[in-house]
Amino acid sequence: MVLHMVGLGLGDERDVTLRGLEAIRGAARVVLEQYTSVLPGVEPARLEALYGKPVEIADRQAVEEGSEGFLEAARDADVAFLVVGDPFGATTHVDLQLRARRMGVRVEVIHNASIMNAVGACGLQLYRFGEAISIVFFTETWRPDSFYDKILANRRAGLHTLCLLDIRVKELTVKALCTGRKEYEPPRYMSVNVALEQLLEVEAARGEGAFAEETMCVGVARLGTPGQSILYGSMAELRGADFGEPLHSLVIPGEVTEFEQEVMDTYRYVPPPSREEDAAAGAESPP
Amino acid sequence: MVLHMVGLGLGDERDVTLRGLEAIRGAARVVLEQYTSVLPGVEPARLEALYGKPVEIADRQAVEEGSEGFLEAARDADVAFLVVGDPFGATTHVDLQLRARRMGVRVEVIHNASIMNAVGACGLQLYRFGEAISIVFFTETWRPDSFYDKILANRRAGLHTLCLLDIRVKELTVKALCTGRKEYEPPRYMSVNVALEQLLEVEAARGEGAFAEETMCVGVARLGTPGQSILYGSMAELRGADFGEPLHSLVIPGEVTEFEQEVMDTYRYVPPPSREEDAAAGAESPP
Repeated sequence: MVLHMVGLGLGDERDVTLRGLEAIRGAARVVLEQYTSVLPGVEPARLEALYGKPVEIADRQAVEEGSEGFLEAARDADVAFLVVGDPFGATTHVDLQLRARRMGVRVEVIHNASIMNAVGACGLQLYRFGEAISIVFFTETWRPDSFYDKILANRRAGLHTLCLLDIRVKELTVKALCTGRKEYEPPRYMSVNVALEQLLEVEAARGEGAFAEETMCVGVARLGTPGQSILYGSMAELRGADFGEPLHSLVIPGEVTEFEQEVMDTYRYVPPPSREEDAAAGAESPP
Repeated sequence: MVLHMVGLGLGDERDVTLRGLEAIRGAARVVLEQYTSVLPGVEPARLEALYGKPVEIADRQAVEEGSEGFLEAARDADVAFLVVGDPFGATTHVDLQLRARRMGVRVEVIHNASIMNAVGACGLQLYRFGEAISIVFFTETWRPDSFYDKILANRRAGLHTLCLLDIRVKELTVKALCTGRKEYEPPRYMSVNVALEQLLEVEAARGEGAFAEETMCVGVARLGTPGQSILYGSMAELRGADFGEPLHSLVIPGEVTEFEQEVMDTYRYVPPPSREEDAAAGAESPP
């Protein structure tokens, strides 16, 4: 039978395509991958209500190790494997497709929007993006900064850089790692603010001038949803901006055309007046 | 009221999202942009049957010059503006959005898959693509080759290059240009074969070694549809491959990871035996 790899798009359950919904409703099993991305605020129950059938949740382990469960099932019955965004956003899904085909299971892919194309909403032209980078949460002992060279290369070539920000879902707690019990950390989604903190920390350490506090960039949140937020400002300004709920992404522009600038200017972030300015304004106003 | 910019995705009328369909069905006017891309083989009547209402066709002139007609209409009533792929694939749509917002019209964008993200289906990782290029039909007098430097830069940086191939829809005939009558050339869609011819011609002229006949690349056709075709082979091989109906695109890989290679190998093009080989095989077979 068929493994349908269905992209869910970026917003909520209504961002599935008609073709995708048909495949899901016709499938014997429906599996939702929920570790490379999520539909924030959308409970699986809302998907189940639309689909009219139960939805199994697959974490990383289930897809990368134990996925033979649903792959085996796809030998005898149609299985729908749901991915937020587009099915080919992550290597792990390309790998899943490859394993399925090697087992003789036919794979049908139903594409959808992903951050990789929806980011065009910020006004920067898609074809002028260079290599995209990922920024992970820094820890005391693990502060990978290989993205820095890529941003530098993109900026030197005049190309824009899409920064994909870390998502931590179903991470085992330290206790769980020690005891083998299934106990998970609460989910964490990197904000534009944290990404900028980390970027500026790396720039301070590396000092090769890939960017600076004054570098203008674009932060986006909940892209593709009616409540999306797009803000254009300097790294220093956006570090303090409130983008609201996840998911967030960041774009560091390269060379900007006049038209791109015109569009970004419509998203200009105006920082709230600082306390000192408030006080000064108060002192200047008549008694 | 609202201008809904609705992405239709890549395949047929069923690739619209539920959110998109709702916006279309609720709109007083539905306008289909049909010059930056098309759903090949899908007549507007099929869209009208699904939507339950008439669909107006907009050519370049209508969108870039005369679009105030439907933009004005969006002041007083909901208008759905349909774009094949994602609404932000082309500058012209970003411009339309900007003009609408300046007129005080609220714009809602409903994203969908586009070639920019669906191309991940070929096995090359999306985040490792550099700047995308466009290849236009060469004429006797107009053979623009600025894409060559971009391919060269991407290849030197180890990045993949997505080549978007020319689409000529509703082009006025020479006679029409002379007489002012509305007479159009039949639509033309560049094939992978023609793109490779032109690329190799430019390489021969420029000679900087951006690529060669032996360079392995990936041609894709009708991506995102059930009848899609993905073929991996050398430029010389794919120049003679039959990809079938439009739309076609081409990818010139940069540095390829082991995993990317593994996936592309599953799409390896096997050229049919040449006549000489056939004859040789015939001579060798027993009488």
